[in-house]
Amino acid sequence: MKVTVSGCSVEEAMRLLGGRWRLLIASYLLDGPKRFNALRKLMPSISQRMLTLDLKALQEAGLVKRTAFPTVPVTVEYELTEDGARLAPVVEVMREFGLWAKERVGVGEPGD
Amino acid sequence: MKVTVSGCSVEEAMRLLGGRWRLLIASYLLDGPKRFNALRKLMPSISQRMLTLDLKALQEAGLVKRTAFPTVPVTVEYELTEDGARLAPVVEVMREFGLWAKERVGVGEPGD
Repeated sequence: MKVTVSGCSVEEAMRLLGGRWRLLIASYLLDGPKRFNALRKLMPSISQRMLTLDLKALQEAGLVKRTAFPTVPVTVEYELTEDGARLAPVVEVMREFGLWAKERVGVGEPGD
Repeated sequence: MKVTVSGCSVEEAMRLLGGRWRLLIASYLLDGPKRFNALRKLMPSISQRMLTLDLKALQEAGLVKRTAFPTVPVTVEYELTEDGARLAPVVEVMREFGLWAKERVGVGEPGD
């Protein structure tokens, strides 16, 4: 039973955070609020559409908050919510695993 | 610079582990070697094709080992490699985040 419960929780986490970009977005937002274009610059490989969709999914999950400031033109900022701050240990362990993976020799890119 | 390096490592980790299923597969393999059909039973939501592709990607990343035993019919088992065992802390932090996420009230499924 332990395994099943564990599996389900991992599945739930990946449902919220799966895909290549959500945790990367969170890693940048852990550093402070960011505008859409600032996020785009930090992640040049992500398309505008995917960034929009992932930010929306993170908002719907209550992990990211979007604030529009009444400037001309409107300024929109994204930041982690209090719940979103719970992603810090997740990002950290992914960062460590990624660092290790990058330092390995001779491992090519797996297929998607 | 710290943020950039951190971001890149998270990106590398998600490149290897992204998608909904790879960490879930790893979570079951942490429990011991499994046959393909046993994994299918543990994860009824994943299609046979996706499970095959993700197992292949994990093998190519050196995280999972596939062993075929010369029985009739052939028995194939998947297990984590020594490198794959490094996924234990990743799975653990995801499991904790998923548990917390499941216990939250009133949060619906975000879009993909």
